[in-house]
Amino acid sequence: MATDLNNLRAIARACTRVENRSPGHEQLLKELFPQSGRAFTLGITGAPGAGKSSLTSALVSALRARELRVAVIAVDPTSPFTGGALLGDRIRMQAHHADPGVFIRSMATRGALGGLAPATHDLALVLDAAGFDWILIETVGVGQDEVDIARLAHLTAVVLAPGMGDSVQAIKAGILEIADLFVINKADLPGAAQLETDLSDWGKPVLQTIATTADGIEALFQKTIELRHALPPDRAIDHWAFRLRRMYAERQQLRLDSGAVLAAARRVAGREADPYTIIEEWLKA
Amino acid sequence: MATDLNNLRAIARACTRVENRSPGHEQLLKELFPQSGRAFTLGITGAPGAGKSSLTSALVSALRARELRVAVIAVDPTSPFTGGALLGDRIRMQAHHADPGVFIRSMATRGALGGLAPATHDLALVLDAAGFDWILIETVGVGQDEVDIARLAHLTAVVLAPGMGDSVQAIKAGILEIADLFVINKADLPGAAQLETDLSDWGKPVLQTIATTADGIEALFQKTIELRHALPPDRAIDHWAFRLRRMYAERQQLRLDSGAVLAAARRVAGREADPYTIIEEWLKA
Repeated sequence: MATDLNNLRAIARACTRVENRSPGHEQLLKELFPQSGRAFTLGITGAPGAGKSSLTSALVSALRARELRVAVIAVDPTSPFTGGALLGDRIRMQAHHADPGVFIRSMATRGALGGLAPATHDLALVLDAAGFDWILIETVGVGQDEVDIARLAHLTAVVLAPGMGDSVQAIKAGILEIADLFVINKADLPGAAQLETDLSDWGKPVLQTIATTADGIEALFQKTIELRHALPPDRAIDHWAFRLRRMYAERQQLRLDSGAVLAAARRVAGREADPYTIIEEWLKA
Repeated sequence: MATDLNNLRAIARACTRVENRSPGHEQLLKELFPQSGRAFTLGITGAPGAGKSSLTSALVSALRARELRVAVIAVDPTSPFTGGALLGDRIRMQAHHADPGVFIRSMATRGALGGLAPATHDLALVLDAAGFDWILIETVGVGQDEVDIARLAHLTAVVLAPGMGDSVQAIKAGILEIADLFVINKADLPGAAQLETDLSDWGKPVLQTIATTADGIEALFQKTIELRHALPPDRAIDHWAFRLRRMYAERQQLRLDSGAVLAAARRVAGREADPYTIIEEWLKA
């Protein structure tokens, strides 16, 4: 089984196998694992409209100017990286698509066998082993999966834009605790100063950017490097503990016999048995 | 152990036990299960700004006018039901808070042990057993958890508003396949006709409403009843098969020994062992 990841086509193929949970994908991951652990992963998350994709694109340019190899995983159906958004944005991304030092991959946001977060993490492992220096993971920032994905990056940037009102509420309720830094994008819009004041309560760095003109991107890069060097050494252990639990649950679920599940579901739907007792029996078996 | 759900306080207490996975919550669910299976659950999902909460509120009024008892589970940090949104919306909801035939419960959208979807489904089971005729589950409609929650309702209404551009894209990528009907809310805004044309390609009923004035709510109620009577009998079996798999995975994960997980995480973080081999060993044990 080839674990050769010397060209983008081979990398794309390995990604597809991992994303689809194809036969042998686990063997592939095992072989790649010793080559992983060198990439730096940055989660970029926030509500639709905050400009996450433009920010990601600007950051890719800044990293490429330093000749760093960059992979982008877009876990966001509204992202131009996934073909979701406005034509202007898509054209802006195309420059990166033509650059062999950049690898862009979008994840389907549903239907991932065993969950979106484990599949995304395994994909990041492939890209790490393939030698990318930075892996940017763009997620939409609402929902448990997105939180789980962002949480397992080395650092997570939460992107907001002035004047979005409700979205700040959503961010507060959902993802605020896992933010390592805040980015106020579209900082030329009215309300940027007020948003900075609101966010400063949370004791995390707040940066202002205008992604479309690259304003503030250099400062964002520098702050990210600084935070990266200050990461607590236990963070990787906590991440792996969380991930091992999830992987175990995923594998257990896949081992269930489909026929037995369907027979049990029929009994439960007919109120002949309660699901909690059935699960107890399965756990004893 | 009391499974008496005769008053709203007792129901709220039972919900809290189930949501927190408190000791004995599973015994409670087992006892309640035979009393469940009578409620009709309707998922109401869509992007922020489409007016899901106003629609939910208008639907609650329509159901109450028929003296049906209604429970609302809001799994949406931007929902006025959860205290998230604009003051005007919150005031509109307060009328329902004072009505003993209405029970409103918000779910924290993160940190639910074993996942948000199982906790939400167990909550719906409590409310079903408590005798509510309808259970409305409002979710934000982006992300796997929200899809899983909506998928397990009897019917799922996807709410959109004209002129939201990107949000239609998000809906397309995420939740379109599980929609049983589409609701174009704020149908007095420009673009409603175009949106109806776009959505008509999907072969699902499309209704127009203006939730704030209750326009179209009666037609929505009638269509929902009609679709309810046409539900395929296997749907409940499919739902339970999906849910049994998830419950099993949740319980397996909770059975892992914390010390063993941490020790393994330390080895993986130090690249002394690969996580895939560790999981294989755990599965064999």
